[in-house]
This record gives sequence, C-alpha cells and structure tokens, in this order.
Amino acid sequence: MTTVGILGGGQLGRMLALAGYPLGLRFRFFDPSPDATAGQLAELHVGDYGDTAALDRFAEGLDTITYEWENVPADVVRYLSARVPVYPPVVALETAQDRLLEKQFFNANSIPTPRFIAVDDRAGLDAAVAELGLPSVLKTRREGYDGKGQVVLREPRDLDAAWQALGERPLILESFVPFDREVAVIAARGRDGQVAVYPPVEIVQREGMLRSARVPRVPHVGGEAQEIEQLAMAGWQLMDLLNALDYVGVLAIELFVVGNQILGNEMAPRVHNSGHWTIEGAQTSQFEQHLRAILGLPLGSTEPRADVAMLNLIGDLPDTAEVLAVPDAHLHLYGKVPRPGRKLGHITVLADDAATLEQRVTRLEGLLP
Amino acid sequence: MTTVGILGGGQLGRMLALAGYPLGLRFRFFDPSPDATAGQLAELHVGDYGDTAALDRFAEGLDTITYEWENVPADVVRYLSARVPVYPPVVALETAQDRLLEKQFFNANSIPTPRFIAVDDRAGLDAAVAELGLPSVLKTRREGYDGKGQVVLREPRDLDAAWQALGERPLILESFVPFDREVAVIAARGRDGQVAVYPPVEIVQREGMLRSARVPRVPHVGGEAQEIEQLAMAGWQLMDLLNALDYVGVLAIELFVVGNQILGNEMAPRVHNSGHWTIEGAQTSQFEQHLRAILGLPLGSTEPRADVAMLNLIGDLPDTAEVLAVPDAHLHLYGKVPRPGRKLGHITVLADDAATLEQRVTRLEGLLP
Repeated sequence: MTTVGILGGGQLGRMLALAGYPLGLRFRFFDPSPDATAGQLAELHVGDYGDTAALDRFAEGLDTITYEWENVPADVVRYLSARVPVYPPVVALETAQDRLLEKQFFNANSIPTPRFIAVDDRAGLDAAVAELGLPSVLKTRREGYDGKGQVVLREPRDLDAAWQALGERPLILESFVPFDREVAVIAARGRDGQVAVYPPVEIVQREGMLRSARVPRVPHVGGEAQEIEQLAMAGWQLMDLLNALDYVGVLAIELFVVGNQILGNEMAPRVHNSGHWTIEGAQTSQFEQHLRAILGLPLGSTEPRADVAMLNLIGDLPDTAEVLAVPDAHLHLYGKVPRPGRKLGHITVLADDAATLEQRVTRLEGLLP
Repeated sequence: MTTVGILGGGQLGRMLALAGYPLGLRFRFFDPSPDATAGQLAELHVGDYGDTAALDRFAEGLDTITYEWENVPADVVRYLSARVPVYPPVVALETAQDRLLEKQFFNANSIPTPRFIAVDDRAGLDAAVAELGLPSVLKTRREGYDGKGQVVLREPRDLDAAWQALGERPLILESFVPFDREVAVIAARGRDGQVAVYPPVEIVQREGMLRSARVPRVPHVGGEAQEIEQLAMAGWQLMDLLNALDYVGVLAIELFVVGNQILGNEMAPRVHNSGHWTIEGAQTSQFEQHLRAILGLPLGSTEPRADVAMLNLIGDLPDTAEVLAVPDAHLHLYGKVPRPGRKLGHITVLADDAATLEQRVTRLEGLLP
C-alpha cells in the first residue's frame, strides 16, 4: 500500500486525501498545529519544521512526499528529498516563495508581468516609486498570501506608513495594474513530462482572498477574440514554464487581464483554491490529478462536465440544509472552527447552461452570511 | 461538529465517510475486526456486537448512528436506539435479515416475488418441493449474502446434499426463476418522508456476487415497453414500501425481470453495491444521499450525469495506471488485502453516449485479471 506524506495539514491536504483514498492510497500529514484539519481523516504528525528528528519520523516508510502549503521552508523539502522523493521540485517552491524570483522567472519564460523593482532600503523605495510612478504596490518578497504583506501606494505620503508596516524585509515594488478581471490557470505535469491544462477560470478576489471562480464550458472568460488568443498563448507558455522547472504535480498561475493583454501575477506550486470546482465539475479533480502526477500515473482529462461556479465560504457558514436544497450544489466544509477571514469551505454548483448557473449562483450568494 | 457512528467498517462505511467529510461530518466506526478498512480514514472502535460496554463507549457523544452491514444484530440496533437515534429503523433491518419476512413484506406491499415456502424440517423440504417443483432454490432464512447460504435443487437426489449443507436452520424454498435480467433500484427517504428514487440499473451477478451495473441515461433497461411500465410501477411500489417501514436512509431492492414481469428478490436497508456508479455518475451519490436522509437534510437530485457503468474488482486488482488511462474511468480501491472472492474495489466509467460507454467497458474488462 502506497503512503503519501503531505507537508501541511490544511484543507488542501484534506482534499488531497479525500481524492487519494479511492486510489487505495494512505496519507500522513506533517503540521505544526495539532488542530490541522487533515488530522480528522488521516495520520497527523505534529512538529516544528525545524525539528529534523520529527521530520525523520514523518518520512519513515513514506513512498512519496508532497506539500500543500507554499511557505514550507525550502530547506525542509531539500532535507526530506534526500530520504524520499518529493514533488513538486524544490526549485519551483523557491521560485514561488519569492515574488522577485517569481516575476523574473515569468519574464524569462515569455510571460509578461506588471513592471517591478526590488526594494532593499528606504532610498530604494523612493527610487522605485520615481521609476514606476503611483499608484503602485509595495509587497514583501516572501511569505505573503491571501492579501497579507502588501500595501497599495497611492500618494507620496503613503510611502512612510508602508515602509513602517513592511520595511526591514526584502520588498518588491510593482506597478499597479487596473485589471479588467483576474484569471487562473491550473496545469499538471507528470513524471514523464505529460502536461494537462484545465480551462482558464475567471476569479474574483476581495481583500486579497479568492471569493469565487467561474468556469464557462465554452472557454471565453470575457469573450473578446484577442483575449481568447492571449489565454491560449498563456496556456502554451505555462507548458514551457512547467518544462523549465522540470515540474511534477499541479501548478496554478494567477493572471491579470488588462484590455487584451495577459499579465502573470503569481504562481502556486500546489493545488489551488481556483481549482476546487474540478471536484465535481471536471472529469478529473485537481486533487486526484496532483496525486496521479507525483505517483507517475497517467494524467486524467481536464474537461469540464458542465458550466461550473465555485463560491468560497469565509469567516462564517451558511445553513447546510439551505445550500443542499439548491440543485446540483455541492457543499465542501473543511472541519475548521469559524473565525473572521478564515476559509471554512466552498460550494461548487453545476448547470447545463450559463443562465441556469447564474440563477443558482445568485440563490447561493443570498444564503451566505 | 456532528459525529456519525457507523456499525460495520467495510467499504460501504468507508465510502460513507468519504462522502460525509465534505459535509463537515466526523465519523466513528464499530467493527469486530481491527483491520476494518474504514479504520484507515476514521476512528475505529474494535469490539464484539455482544459487548454492551464497548457499544456504550462507541455511542458516547454520537449524534446519529447508522449501519453499513445488514447482518448487524437487531438487538444491537435496539440497544443503541435507546441512547442515540439510529437510522434506518430496526424493523427494516429485521425484515431484510429474514428471507421469509422479506418476501412476505414484498407481497404485502404489492411487489410480486417468486413463489416461496418456509422449510423447518426435512419433511417440510419434501412437501415444499412437491408444491413448487424442480428446479427450485433452497436458502437459509438468515445470514445469506453474496451467494452464500443457498443451493439450487435440480433433481430429487439433490435434496439430501442440500439438507446436509443447510439443514438445522430455518430455511426457505423458492421457485427457480429463469430471469432474463436482474435490475436494482435504489431509493432514499428523508426524516420528513421525502423520497428520491435513482434510475433502475441493470446488474450482472456471477457466483452470487455482483459483477457489474449499467445505467442507461434513457431509462430503458432492456427496452420493452411493458417492462418500462413494470419498472415504473416497481418505483411506485418502492415508495409504498419505504412509507410502510417509515424508512429513513437509502434502501436497495433487487428485482428479477422475467418476460414482462418484475419480481422482488431481496432488499438491503443500506447503501448498496449496485449504487456505486452514483459517486461520479449521479448529481448526488448514494452515500451522500444516505447521510442527508439520516441527518434530516434535503435529499439531492438522483439524475445521472452521463451513460454510466460500474465494474466490481473481485479477488485481484488490475494495473492502476492502465485503468486510469481509460477516459472518464474512475478507480475506487477499498484498501483491502487481495483474497479470492473478496470485493477489493470498483471502477466507474462515464460516456456521453451508449456506444462510447460500451467501448470503454470492453477496454476495462480487458484489464481485469
């Protein structure tokens, strides 16, 4: 029986296990918190990422290791890689963990990005603002997620406060992009180099957190011909990017659509919130796809089964019975205690046509607290 | 957080938990074997059904109890019912556990069956054979499953051997039905009396074990007009039957199709092998449906998503990679050690049309050991 180790025991790990049990797999999680939700349905090793003895115990007898959190220290992945195969490769993790490396990597692989400049001190911030103008966005290079670690600079007087909040760490200034919409593309690459790309999904973020995703079965996402062309190109560039990393597993990339231009924003070397719709909505879920990829199994079809939308449940939960009364709505709760700003679950809803889908989405949105 | 207790920790329980985790539920299983497969992904209490102290510990703090094995002693269900709500009701369990009560109950609810006579001693066997003729089938009234506990009598000299094998227990003799095909219907009834019926599936059994199930999206199952009418009637009668039991949960009934007649064979007061196709193939899986029913949540749509077939994996496993290379094929392994005659998993395969489905089924059948 194959046992997969997963670094991080949050909802992404939990959904990996739910997708993997039907493949006959067993799971072991590693997380600093004894409350990690994946512990409700699999073996959980509680430990600090700096504790090599705990990591050794975790690795004992595992067939493959993966991660569900992109802030796992790269050194931990490197340490474990000497014992058990770890996918995705550590270079992808290191690139995604640093906004500067990430954007340089995008540009090196023909994916344009907003303009950016590394900021290492207060004088560097002034110089970068002089170069990129205002508004622009000051971000920490590392450990930002869900909108944390970034400040929008609108006027010159914003610089001091932003420096107070974020300084003393390596930063990056990015030109502010007045995007028309945001799109995410998820792709998987197998150990044999086979690549499968899911259709692009239109995502809506608020306060830096993903709120909803929509997957039109006919891949238009907005519908402008030039945009379709650009998205198709982004798909191709994504393949180049996966190959450049010798990537294995699922990777997500978030893109800005500005006019008819597509700009790379960030990537996540893991299963991703924008792909939760695939559990019911695609022939193969992103979670099963990730497991297939890291275990050297053939990748599955990424074809959508219907028009699909996904709504995140953040901070507070709707009434379960009311959600389940909506036709073809599927509730996914993560077994976490409600807390403001916390991702507690999501709802996926399917329909045979776009109009019916919108009706169901509207009904579901009315149920959210 | 709601915790559901499940009596029996086999694959049916395992799949109930996999369907229930996304609803935010927790699970606790009770099984005499420490190797019960559900223990791989949930809390498992190992104990004897006669050990009331173990049952008390199991019941402690549970919100609802259900069962995944129809040979759970009815007294255990009655004992636990005094502590925690148990669904389906014990009367359904007792009826399904006894082939004589079961067939009497079918007849009392307008579902015709093969002719049958209770057999209590050797003389009774002779009298029953004189009445029903040969061939006929001698079965134990209790504890038969997957073809165990039954013998076909073809010639008068078969009676002694059959009595040797099965005697000393209450038996039933049934007339042998040269059926054209077997069909199973799965229905669910909620705590509020709401009923949802899945489309009838054509099932193939061999050596008394289910081998495959097929769900034509257009519900013809054979296609004769009279048969369709009969099956529709069986659906209605099933509703009467659920109401008569004040049933709560999923119930399966197996039927013989003989010419244009439909005869009730047996029922199972639980999720059922003939409904495994619903995990990917229907809008709501039978496992989620059962949980919705017993928890008082609204039932979901039973509509199929495509043409669907299900193949059981018995005794030995095919190569995982070869199965996953078949388009829209979904592997479900139960985490059990292979052993001849043991149900180890199943494959569900979907297609947009019947011809493509048959191609995929043929390809999958070629992969089975």
